[in-house]
Amino acid sequence: MPHRRVYYFGGGKADGRGEMKNILGGKGANLAEMTNLGIPVPAGFTISTKVCTHYMDSDGTFPDGLKDEVAAAITKVEEAMGTGFGNPDDPLLFSVRSGARVSMPGMMDTVLNIGLNEKTAAGLIKKTGDERFVYDSYRRLIQMYADVVMSLDSEAFHGILEARKKTKGVWHDLELDANDLREITVEYKKKVKELSGKEFPDDPTEQLWGAISAVFESWNIPRAISYRRLNDIADDWGTAVNVQAMVFGNMGKNSATGVAFTRDPATGEKVFYGEYLPNAQGEDVVAGVRTPRPINLAQKQEGDEESLEETMPSIYQELEAIRQNLERHYTDTQDIEFTIQEGKLWMLQTRTGKRTAEAAIRIAVEMEAEGLIDRKTAVLRVEPEQIERLLHKGLDPSAKYDVLAKGLPASPGAAVGRVVFTAEDAVGWAESDDAEKARTILVREETSPEDIDGMNASQGFLTARGGMTSHAAVVARGMGKCCIAGAGDVKIDYAARTFSVSGTVIKEGDWLTLNGSTGEVILGQVPTVEAELSGNFATLLEWADEFRQLGVRTNADTPEDAARARGFGAEGIGLCRTEHMFFGDERIRHIRAMIMAADETERRAALDKLLPFQRADFEGILEAMEGLPVTIRLLDPPLHEFIPPDEEIGQLAKELGKDAAQMIERAEELREANPMLGHRGCRLGITYPEVYEMQARAIFEAACSLARRGVDVKPEVMVPLVGEPKELAILRELVDRVAREVIAQEKVAVDIRIGTMIEIPRAALTADEVAEYADFFSFGTNDLTQMTYGYSRDDAGAFIKDYLKKGILRKDPFQSLDQRGVGQLVKMAVEKGRQINPDLHLGICGEHGGDPASIDFCHHAGLAYVSCSPYRVPVARLAAAHAVLRARMRSFH
Amino acid sequence: MPHRRVYYFGGGKADGRGEMKNILGGKGANLAEMTNLGIPVPAGFTISTKVCTHYMDSDGTFPDGLKDEVAAAITKVEEAMGTGFGNPDDPLLFSVRSGARVSMPGMMDTVLNIGLNEKTAAGLIKKTGDERFVYDSYRRLIQMYADVVMSLDSEAFHGILEARKKTKGVWHDLELDANDLREITVEYKKKVKELSGKEFPDDPTEQLWGAISAVFESWNIPRAISYRRLNDIADDWGTAVNVQAMVFGNMGKNSATGVAFTRDPATGEKVFYGEYLPNAQGEDVVAGVRTPRPINLAQKQEGDEESLEETMPSIYQELEAIRQNLERHYTDTQDIEFTIQEGKLWMLQTRTGKRTAEAAIRIAVEMEAEGLIDRKTAVLRVEPEQIERLLHKGLDPSAKYDVLAKGLPASPGAAVGRVVFTAEDAVGWAESDDAEKARTILVREETSPEDIDGMNASQGFLTARGGMTSHAAVVARGMGKCCIAGAGDVKIDYAARTFSVSGTVIKEGDWLTLNGSTGEVILGQVPTVEAELSGNFATLLEWADEFRQLGVRTNADTPEDAARARGFGAEGIGLCRTEHMFFGDERIRHIRAMIMAADETERRAALDKLLPFQRADFEGILEAMEGLPVTIRLLDPPLHEFIPPDEEIGQLAKELGKDAAQMIERAEELREANPMLGHRGCRLGITYPEVYEMQARAIFEAACSLARRGVDVKPEVMVPLVGEPKELAILRELVDRVAREVIAQEKVAVDIRIGTMIEIPRAALTADEVAEYADFFSFGTNDLTQMTYGYSRDDAGAFIKDYLKKGILRKDPFQSLDQRGVGQLVKMAVEKGRQINPDLHLGICGEHGGDPASIDFCHHAGLAYVSCSPYRVPVARLAAAHAVLRARMRSFH
Repeated sequence: MPHRRVYYFGGGKADGRGEMKNILGGKGANLAEMTNLGIPVPAGFTISTKVCTHYMDSDGTFPDGLKDEVAAAITKVEEAMGTGFGNPDDPLLFSVRSGARVSMPGMMDTVLNIGLNEKTAAGLIKKTGDERFVYDSYRRLIQMYADVVMSLDSEAFHGILEARKKTKGVWHDLELDANDLREITVEYKKKVKELSGKEFPDDPTEQLWGAISAVFESWNIPRAISYRRLNDIADDWGTAVNVQAMVFGNMGKNSATGVAFTRDPATGEKVFYGEYLPNAQGEDVVAGVRTPRPINLAQKQEGDEESLEETMPSIYQELEAIRQNLERHYTDTQDIEFTIQEGKLWMLQTRTGKRTAEAAIRIAVEMEAEGLIDRKTAVLRVEPEQIERLLHKGLDPSAKYDVLAKGLPASPGAAVGRVVFTAEDAVGWAESDDAEKARTILVREETSPEDIDGMNASQGFLTARGGMTSHAAVVARGMGKCCIAGAGDVKIDYAARTFSVSGTVIKEGDWLTLNGSTGEVILGQVPTVEAELSGNFATLLEWADEFRQLGVRTNADTPEDAARARGFGAEGIGLCRTEHMFFGDERIRHIRAMIMAADETERRAALDKLLPFQRADFEGILEAMEGLPVTIRLLDPPLHEFIPPDEEIGQLAKELGKDAAQMIERAEELREANPMLGHRGCRLGITYPEVYEMQARAIFEAACSLARRGVDVKPEVMVPLVGEPKELAILRELVDRVAREVIAQEKVAVDIRIGTMIEIPRAALTADEVAEYADFFSFGTNDLTQMTYGYSRDDAGAFIKDYLKKGILRKDPFQSLDQRGVGQLVKMAVEKGRQINPDLHLGICGEHGGDPASIDFCHHAGLAYVSCSPYRVPVARLAAAHAVLRARMRSFH
Repeated sequence: MPHRRVYYFGGGKADGRGEMKNILGGKGANLAEMTNLGIPVPAGFTISTKVCTHYMDSDGTFPDGLKDEVAAAITKVEEAMGTGFGNPDDPLLFSVRSGARVSMPGMMDTVLNIGLNEKTAAGLIKKTGDERFVYDSYRRLIQMYADVVMSLDSEAFHGILEARKKTKGVWHDLELDANDLREITVEYKKKVKELSGKEFPDDPTEQLWGAISAVFESWNIPRAISYRRLNDIADDWGTAVNVQAMVFGNMGKNSATGVAFTRDPATGEKVFYGEYLPNAQGEDVVAGVRTPRPINLAQKQEGDEESLEETMPSIYQELEAIRQNLERHYTDTQDIEFTIQEGKLWMLQTRTGKRTAEAAIRIAVEMEAEGLIDRKTAVLRVEPEQIERLLHKGLDPSAKYDVLAKGLPASPGAAVGRVVFTAEDAVGWAESDDAEKARTILVREETSPEDIDGMNASQGFLTARGGMTSHAAVVARGMGKCCIAGAGDVKIDYAARTFSVSGTVIKEGDWLTLNGSTGEVILGQVPTVEAELSGNFATLLEWADEFRQLGVRTNADTPEDAARARGFGAEGIGLCRTEHMFFGDERIRHIRAMIMAADETERRAALDKLLPFQRADFEGILEAMEGLPVTIRLLDPPLHEFIPPDEEIGQLAKELGKDAAQMIERAEELREANPMLGHRGCRLGITYPEVYEMQARAIFEAACSLARRGVDVKPEVMVPLVGEPKELAILRELVDRVAREVIAQEKVAVDIRIGTMIEIPRAALTADEVAEYADFFSFGTNDLTQMTYGYSRDDAGAFIKDYLKKGILRKDPFQSLDQRGVGQLVKMAVEKGRQINPDLHLGICGEHGGDPASIDFCHHAGLAYVSCSPYRVPVARLAAAHAVLRARMRSFH
């Protein structure tokens, strides 16, 4: 049918089809689809997106003959619905809605009740016997029309309504009676005349064409244009217009309205789930004045009023059949809206039903068993982002609470404990005999590596500063603990041992609850529930494993974390940070002695004392990961992170037998204006080669000693912060030499790999040279993002929020990899690296390794694996499968 | 001549030619060249680099027939020199030297006196009558040979010499007599036997072949390999071996030795300039035991001994002829070494003579006038890096002084003044009636923008921290003041108002002299001399302007700087930093009020008060640069830089009528962990648009008011720190709007350009999108270097020194643009930007804009201009010409 511009739907047959989204828009295509399925949809027609394009290109005029086509379609609608557009006895009313290829919040949404005027209103009152409803509909038509079609100031109309309520001494629109509303329609029409100089149109056809024009016009309002720009929607796609007959659920006892899900959206159970209201319109459900009733007996509980299954059994059966029809057709759970008008069931909407993570998994696995979908589809049905919370303890969903403050949901789960302000207190209280006192929440401006023991000892962390990848956040996700970061309203007074939130003062020892999944900080104790990892969950992840090509490793610094991650399916450690191991009580003393050493000899003496500790650490981790690769990063943070605060230096000096003044001077020397860009990473390895030597020795001694006991170890040594190929050349040589020495001395064969982080832009730019010295690249996208954007993770919170709000950033680049900029460097490094070294093993170990969108990117960039915090491992497994399956879908279409 | 492997030179004819560097090496080609010029060069021969390649490829064996060729060459040398190799009566001695295509410090350099043994030594003693000289030569042969040919431990030989001196109770080698040295040769030979198990070879031919092999072997010693790797020298180039007859200037009264320059290397005057010693060897000149004599009457001063011109007039005439011959041939000033052996003149070396900046300019301009060279060559003869110092005051070259400490030569020139430790003191003392007291040197750990007034008031700055691009350094170069930065040995005690350098304590008020060209800190007052900008200098720069394609602008923040730079030839301002204007007494108060504002209204009130100041600033600068473009950068540094130290906040609070506690809290909020990566640049413009609005308004009001007075203004507004195209989209819109408003209100036409700094890696990576909103890009390579390398300018000093020493970095990337990494981003941005916007104007305004190597890069990257500090403008003009001329030379070859 060439040159069709108006697509009718109704009476079981539609001109359009579901796949014609480009010309019918999403909504129009969906209405056509449902109609063709034999589902009773109120009749109507869709004016194609091509008309919109024509309208735009020709200064707001319609193509020749369009009016005739629309008139013909209206006649068909009238026939199907048995009513007449503008017929005072049995008036047909229309809704007019915009509908582009993709949903576009910027545009005009809807004008309802097109076709009402004094005459048709009278007819409708006669039919429904509900004068209040009719005049409410009429005044709504005028108000909406004046706003979106005539572009009049909506405040003026709102004012009229408010004035009336004031006069009547009432608070709610619902308290206005039919008479009030009738008088308001009169005032509204006067106001239209006053503001526009024109009468409000009485002619239904004029109303309709006004609304159609308004939809097309709304395609080019600034809000819509800027939404398109932000979301890569082409200006020439245009929008379609959907004109559809309105139906009413408030036409008496045999009318009703309701909503339902084809399966339980909370649990996923295969049960028809919904509610309805007899003799009511959709707004009544929303207004909450009347309590909805269950649609079936299955849901009916004591005290509930009669279900639809009981009051209108045949309608319910029809609905049940539609439910099955819809699930068969869409092969997914649907969220439906229906209206029963005088004993006739009309479906107003069907869409994919939102669901909880638990429900998503159960529905996917059960639908596969039912043969409705295949495994690939089942895997794609569960959003990776959803599932992480299934692994964490959560607040009891039934608990009620008030939110004291909000921060960033930096690490999910829930934590309940008493407020402490120092890591030492957290440790001290944890050792308390009083089990209640032992549970603490560590509240800090921000945490630092020194706090590690305290963090370990507490239930969760709350920081006033820092973002999603701040120290507290990263450590929390690693430990699987709950963390709320960057709660800016939290003002801490360390001296007083209190913090305050807009006047409320919380003292040390007060109970606090954190909801790490939402960022809510709650005063007092909220009950929590343990998570369950159901059989369906495991099944789904196994299916995901069948499809994914990316390996999934974990970032873990302790044998405990490593074991936990392995339980979640981790296939190795992608990042083991050695510095976190430095903060044990005795170790830190040796580390400090090392830093304060006057020369290399003293430094080596201190390092010799550290060696056994590091060796034991590595043994633990390598053993926990037997058979799997473990990538160990050599010392990364600047040395001053290990130095105690000024007030403790005196004590330290005494312990080390040094001069306190000299030590303060040394500490001052190490302080940096921008530590993130300072003397750290391999720069330390170059300046103090003996530090990396000790670490390499500890790794290889641990590996050899395990190998001699028959443990299969796969250590990989990673040099951080390389920005210049020669750095790696020198340090690779150093590590290689130590490996040769240790292996010769221990007389046992161990395979080792030596590689580097790519986390400095320059390393990506010179990756071809870097690759000469690397067995592997691991993209450290946290630092790479910091330097590519010039954003400090610790400070950027101040403006990133603003940037997200203003649409300058679509996502926080520390949460989801910036593919356009940072990604460009990643791709460049992959290409250049492989060119020189085709066997180069490639992975990512930044926080992005657990972000689904970033994982998709990594898959397409050709990486071999992603590495993420233990609790993110299942997310990554699923996301990696999605990356493969989505790509197949794309190439199929 | 196919397959020639040995190239003879001597007697006015050589087998090789000067351009055969690839097979003769640089030294061999030069010897051939001189010989062919008819210059008397001691005869010898060069074994080609191809023999080296053969030697390497065939396990250290020589090609068949080589020995015969060498023997034949030796015979020719014997004939030319009238002596015999191994002839006890009249022995011929050889020097053996390596010589690759380019000079390679890693390799074996020289073995002298090949051919000496007990018999030939006796013959030589008979000839020279100088037993001490002969045995000293002999023991040197053994020592060098044992070291470089036999690879024996040189310490052992050194020990023998030292032991002898101890026994004799003398300090210097020269105090050993002939007998000592003869006995030492015996001990040396014993030691050779002891260490190697072999006798020291007596046979001259064996000695010779040992030395030849050693040269070839030295091509592959680790030092040489790593030097090649660092300097991109191919492994298969190989080295040649130069075997040359030795001549002796100590054979009696008609022998002598000397060095000379064909023109005066200090002034450039066209006068033969040199010195000689009769009856002496080259070492005697170096040892400084005897005072050399002038070579001619022109140089002879009262008290000088007879000149060569007087003692050997015909030899002097011959030398004078050679001088002219060499200058004609090489068309440049030569530095020559000669020896007169028994009345016969031998030229040992000629090479391009080093010269001062003054001399370089004078020689280039005069040689052009003489027709020896053309203008292009003249321009290329002066190194841009040399000339900057000509513009600065310097220490009197004749002054003697002791150096107290050394730092980085951050801004050239000299400064003499009294030590002060605060900017306020510098200002206070400068207002003193005592002119001596008014001259201060500001000594700080490091400077900050608050110190600007004090810096202005003082003669020069000395900082203990910071590098070549630290605040102090950048400001100093901008102001044309002397600065020594990062003098790590300087330990400041602000409380005591002293600083110390390894024990020496310097108090406030003590006199200090800084040599900013060398980084030397000197206690007391050293006399200084004013610089002269000679006519030749101006001529040369005009010639440079004829060739260069790059424009040269300046970085200037005040009308004074702008005018100075214009005087030096600046064609506009490439970077005017508005924040430096904020530190005036009254302004800073308004700025602080702005920062401390509780809301936008308060902030706008403070900004309104700043507006007139900024407008006046811009008027001054735009007027000083009439007819030329002025690029003004909107506020860049983080706000906390403007906040006073904690102890002054109370006072500020009182002034602003605010609560001190709240202000401290606000100051704390603004403090950042990594300010370089924090809330600054356009991020401030996005968060506080009213700040940029005020600045844009001030710029346009200034421009309009000047334009109305008929001044030709070309303002360009630059948005700093863009990392995401949308930032620029939003801020361009803001600036454009203000421009429209002001122009409409002032009713005068002004052309404006709006553009951005490219200083964040992501801006380069997304330059195609950024270019949509930019009229120009200005590469801010300081920040771009910081972020591409992940180096903080303020902190990197700690390891960059180490990196330079270890050869990891060839140059400090803050001094010379890193072409491999940072340059890659620049090129990418140029390409992407031009693709979208072919008219995009491109420049650079980082400190690299004044660095010759970086300027060469900018030329080739296709930039339109470079911008640098005022004193660098002449450097940039010359360097820009070099970039063009060098490229022509390259394409010619």
